Amino acid sequence: MPTLQERIQSAGIVWPEPSPAAGNYLPFVEADGWIHVSGQLPMVSGQLVATGKVGADVSLDEAYQAARVCAINGLALIRQALGGSDEALERVRIVRVGGFVASAAGFTAQPRVINGASDLLVEILGEAGRHARAAVGVAELPLGAAVEVEFLARVR
Amino acid sequence: MPTLQERIQSAGIVWPEPSPAAGNYLPFVEADGWIHVSGQLPMVSGQLVATGKVGADVSLDEAYQAARVCAINGLALIRQALGGSDEALERVRIVRVGGFVASAAGFTAQPRVINGASDLLVEILGEAGRHARAAVGVAELPLGAAVEVEFLARVR
Amino acid sequence: MPTLQERIQSAGIVWPEPSPAAGNYLPFVEADGWIHVSGQLPMVSGQLVATGKVGADVSLDEAYQAARVCAINGLALIRQALGGSDEALERVRIVRVGGFVASAAGFTAQPRVINGASDLLVEILGEAGRHARAAVGVAELPLGAAVEVEFLARVR
Repeated sequence: MPTLQERIQSAGIVWPEPSPAAGNYLPFVEADGWIHVSGQLPMVSGQLVATGKVGADVSLDEAYQAARVCAINGLALIRQALGGSDEALERVRIVRVGGFVASAAGFTAQPRVINGASDLLVEILGEAGRHARAAVGVAELPLGAAVEVEFLARVR
Repeated sequence: MPTLQERIQSAGIVWPEPSPAAGNYLPFVEADGWIHVSGQLPMVSGQLVATGKVGADVSLDEAYQAARVCAINGLALIRQALGGSDEALERVRIVRVGGFVASAAGFTAQPRVINGASDLLVEILGEAGRHARAAVGVAELPLGAAVEVEFLARVR
Repeated sequence: MPTLQERIQSAGIVWPEPSPAAGNYLPFVEADGWIHVSGQLPMVSGQLVATGKVGADVSLDEAYQAARVCAINGLALIRQALGGSDEALERVRIVRVGGFVASAAGFTAQPRVINGASDLLVEILGEAGRHARAAVGVAELPLGAAVEVEFLARVR
């Protein structure tokens, strides 16, 4: 079975520089062994990779990839919260994922979109990446993003 | 005062088989005495009992009943998390309910819809079923469901 | 550096009477050192200060002020949970804020709206008011409110 670091490599992940928060909040808060990660947008190098409504402007596959980016960004913050090494991620259990999909009228495949985040978490963390989840379709997201995902992790 | 089991019987609850998750996530995660239950859809025997927008395709009363079904499904998962007996539910406090209502334009009675879930929790668990809550109206929900409800419980 | 009470005064805050819950739920639940505050509407003396969609019926500045009102209402409940004195707020860390903005089509400045809540929390609590956050644009909110904000606090 591959190690965590091998899984990170084979997923092709290069940890991003954290995006600045879009408002007066923190990227994450750790309290009493829980890490709450703020809603992540699908930012790569400061640019949204998917804007508009899923089911109209954005395809299901593009939205899935955007959700995957949100999870990489969220995992990068959890890694940072724990000191900044890949090994630190061994101590993490993802408990909850909240997924918001900017949805065109009639688009109801939010679970398949947010699977982009969930699949990445399981790919990297294995069983410790499996989580409870709520996925919903919203009217609009910050900056016109197609997807936003927040995370709750437990530190062991 | 009726016992928990009497309340379950008089509410006419038959615990459902858990619905399969709609994506790559777990129905619930227990960590450190907290149970996070994934967003529940109003599924009975694998079929949604209410689809479409509340205030247009779905009446307030139908949506209330759908939210009640979400709460039965959520409570069934909490019961399962604690070993699968009715008695185990005595150890539970419901702390938070998150309710999402697929809302037609101008429909603003989300609290009356999500009361379907809240009333069921209080009917079964009494004071321990009383919870904090957020209820909002969203654009679209998975599979076209009219209502989705997630739960956070504390185990005593 | 001003004391907590001085900051409360200079912000012009008069703690409101708690609004009655809009449904069968509690304004807040405290469990194991965590306070979950229910979704707060921008109510002043029992009246919503902003109704309709932000970006159409409600301006950005009005929505910012409405989010600030939600935060005052939420902080009043946290204060009440801890016994009702201003000093008790010294024991609080705000961990997470969930912000919902009733959004007109194309309105994507949800973070600037929810900053109304975040700025108030930091103004009053300083570093302990800085939090993780998710802000999204929803279709409809209870009673036609323009903004709804929920809070999670850790008690020290």
